Amino acid sequence: MDPAEGRRILVAVDEGDESVHALRWCLTNFAARGDGELAPPDTILLLYVRPTPPTYSVLDASGYMFANEATAAIDGYSRAVADAVVDKAQKLCALHSKENGKVKVDVKVAVGDARSVICDMVDKLGADLLVMGSHGYGFLKRALLGSVSDYCVRNANCPVLIVKSK
Amino acid sequence: MDPAEGRRILVAVDEGDESVHALRWCLTNFAARGDGELAPPDTILLLYVRPTPPTYSVLDASGYMFANEATAAIDGYSRAVADAVVDKAQKLCALHSKENGKVKVDVKVAVGDARSVICDMVDKLGADLLVMGSHGYGFLKRALLGSVSDYCVRNANCPVLIVKSK
Repeated sequence: MDPAEGRRILVAVDEGDESVHALRWCLTNFAARGDGELAPPDTILLLYVRPTPPTYSVLDASGYMFANEATAAIDGYSRAVADAVVDKAQKLCALHSKENGKVKVDVKVAVGDARSVICDMVDKLGADLLVMGSHGYGFLKRALLGSVSDYCVRNANCPVLIVKSK
Repeated sequence: MDPAEGRRILVAVDEGDESVHALRWCLTNFAARGDGELAPPDTILLLYVRPTPPTYSVLDASGYMFANEATAAIDGYSRAVADAVVDKAQKLCALHSKENGKVKVDVKVAVGDARSVICDMVDKLGADLLVMGSHGYGFLKRALLGSVSDYCVRNANCPVLIVKSK
């Protein structure tokens, strides 16, 4: 942690309400607004991880679609979801800044497996803390792969704060 | 969280260096020293969980010991360990208070299975945050039962901060 830079807090956001709750908790309880040169404001790094676009062909009601069209449609939807999630998170940060003083916000959207991407980003962005909800990414995927948060608690090279909805 | 009371931060400490590191990280990065009536100091609740005293008989080099004597000896050792761990943690808090302003410290020593006791204490003490290292309690027990921190991340009714040693 560079004291002249404030802390870098990586918040992994997804479509779920729990990640919104985690971001809100972090803003209220952890992120400091800064106080001149001695205590510069913390930086919130909002990270949304889009799943890797599918490469298989897709069957719709009328028969086979061209795989390219289908994957492009899915990819477009995934981008729209990413924009919506990030937009919501940014608005929450802006609202908090208005009420409590400014925090710096930086947005990152990455593509891949959330578990490894989040842990890689901790290193790449030099995060001092990783904040996330306790699940997300669906029941089935969680059952198959274990939860994203479990993986990050074990593998991220920084302290991890898990915030659950009550 | 009662704003007139400051936040209540439960820090689970054990014999390992990792829990000392977790406590230090929490004191440096999270615990606020308070700033008059508007922002009262946070309370650090230091929790050490002693294992349940054994009730089986023990064989030493000279033959069987009386089970009572052996368990009393083990229990005595366990109490001494608890005192040492808590003492070390309290000293760390006192040192931090001296350098950065006062935080309130409260010590709890409980007996039982660390996983369930820690989660119970979160409810009982009304903790706003649980802080702990990522493991502790030995490789074998962790392999058999899963790690204490995994359990607490899933079951504690408050946000959980896991701090690992690098």
